[in-house]
Amino acid sequence: MFGAFQCRFPENAMPVPHRIEQAPSQPLSAGIGPLPGRPGFVSLVGAGPGCPDLITVRGLRALEAAQVILYDALLDPSFAGLFPEGALALSVGKRCGKAGAEQADIHQLMIEHARAGRRVVRLKGGDPLIFGRGGEEALALEAAGIPFDVIPGVSALQGAAAGAGFPLTHREVSRRITVLEGHHLPATAAAWRDLAASGGTLAVYMGTRTLQTLASTLLDHGASPTLPVALVEQAQCPGQTSTFSTLAHAAAGALRPATEGPGILFVGEALHHRFHPTSEVSHEPAALVPGSPREARARGGRRERRAG
Amino acid sequence: MFGAFQCRFPENAMPVPHRIEQAPSQPLSAGIGPLPGRPGFVSLVGAGPGCPDLITVRGLRALEAAQVILYDALLDPSFAGLFPEGALALSVGKRCGKAGAEQADIHQLMIEHARAGRRVVRLKGGDPLIFGRGGEEALALEAAGIPFDVIPGVSALQGAAAGAGFPLTHREVSRRITVLEGHHLPATAAAWRDLAASGGTLAVYMGTRTLQTLASTLLDHGASPTLPVALVEQAQCPGQTSTFSTLAHAAAGALRPATEGPGILFVGEALHHRFHPTSEVSHEPAALVPGSPREARARGGRRERRAG
Repeated sequence: MFGAFQCRFPENAMPVPHRIEQAPSQPLSAGIGPLPGRPGFVSLVGAGPGCPDLITVRGLRALEAAQVILYDALLDPSFAGLFPEGALALSVGKRCGKAGAEQADIHQLMIEHARAGRRVVRLKGGDPLIFGRGGEEALALEAAGIPFDVIPGVSALQGAAAGAGFPLTHREVSRRITVLEGHHLPATAAAWRDLAASGGTLAVYMGTRTLQTLASTLLDHGASPTLPVALVEQAQCPGQTSTFSTLAHAAAGALRPATEGPGILFVGEALHHRFHPTSEVSHEPAALVPGSPREARARGGRRERRAG
Repeated sequence: MFGAFQCRFPENAMPVPHRIEQAPSQPLSAGIGPLPGRPGFVSLVGAGPGCPDLITVRGLRALEAAQVILYDALLDPSFAGLFPEGALALSVGKRCGKAGAEQADIHQLMIEHARAGRRVVRLKGGDPLIFGRGGEEALALEAAGIPFDVIPGVSALQGAAAGAGFPLTHREVSRRITVLEGHHLPATAAAWRDLAASGGTLAVYMGTRTLQTLASTLLDHGASPTLPVALVEQAQCPGQTSTFSTLAHAAAGALRPATEGPGILFVGEALHHRFHPTSEVSHEPAALVPGSPREARARGGRRERRAG
């Protein structure tokens, strides 16, 4: 009855029948013909923040109907368990620091497969329209006359808060959320003063490398040294780690990443209102298979640290 | 093969076997005993932004395992189709403007049902930790010693952007998202100046009533009169309406709500990068049943307007 807290999708219960190949070397004529009478179609699908079971039901259905799946290289490999048998699955897009030219290839792959009459899913981490270039992909499809839809997903913001255990807004404490990207921080003193004074929750995607700079800059613009800070790494993935500290400690370099994985940094009074979700429950009825990946993850559990 | 764009969950294919009753008059001894050997447990589940098929797979599994479901009164009635047979389903919580005392009743219901050994789902619109008092509910459970977890959900932010067709961030245009609540707007001129100058995307939950004030205040603090504005009402629900305008027109009162339902207001340059998802596709294989609610919705479609 009880299993791993995370990744409750029975990934080890399913064989992986699809073919994973690298884009863009894959030819388009790979025996994945269109269904008769169906026009090609692309769904831009948010995969959610980590585990496959945090995809939406609508997203899962789009995957199940897909003939071609173009998935972010950064997605957890267990997503492969959701791909239908016979679908062509191509890993595309960026790993840290390597984007750029590949984006045009992704557009071309989506368009060519759809023009060949296929049902394509472009599976993207988090939500397609938050820091995911989903807007660009939608516009490329529209310009090419390809029918498409966008299926939203749970973003790292929500996944990290639920996994690490704190609210993003809290009555009479925080009524505002500001979402930034670590390598595009505000440029003006006015913006920093406002963030320091907002009383809201600040969430910085890809915030690991920039956390000390960010904390120092907030302090310099009037934020309280005791403001709580959390670094949540690999949110909702088996290796999720949350490290709690204060702005002063983070500025002093005492808050350090625990993993090599992506991290999201949070700052704000709402983090004072922490709670501790039970980590042992599973919503799956199935028992763990000893020695299986799920069982190994259950043994590993997730980690929580305190820095500074 | 094609059906309604929205609410693709086959709500009309399922009878509604559960009992819906009003809290808190429901006694606890209603024949929904604990499963032997299972401790009571509460899952705070994000239902997503509207349609039942935008719940996560993990959230759906929690619902399927639930003996007691405490659901937000504002949720679409079609969620009832997800409730397992024999579960006790209680409508709780606020309708517009009536919160307050009821929150303590919700805490008490969750705690008492869990203490009776039952598996409880607290089903909340959007994400439980964004403007949903999920933090308070988690803290109440923790204080009472009840094991619980939090299952994140797609928030109205993501649902509205995907449904109405614009990115929340866009490369070289918008790298910041600010989420506010319509009845808790910033109080300082500095905050307004920063929002007006941020170049990011502003999303105002429950933004319908406050939209003219908000637009005027942004203009007064230096925002461009031509900045695009969108009001998305009943996002991802069958009656979704999106109205696009500019800040100047919104400030002049030309942007008016189309419905009585909840609305989320967006402001920012990213809205210039609109796209138009195909509204006729369904990821369900089933054909529409003539005269069914789904078929009626497909005929109704969704509406898009241009104000000012």
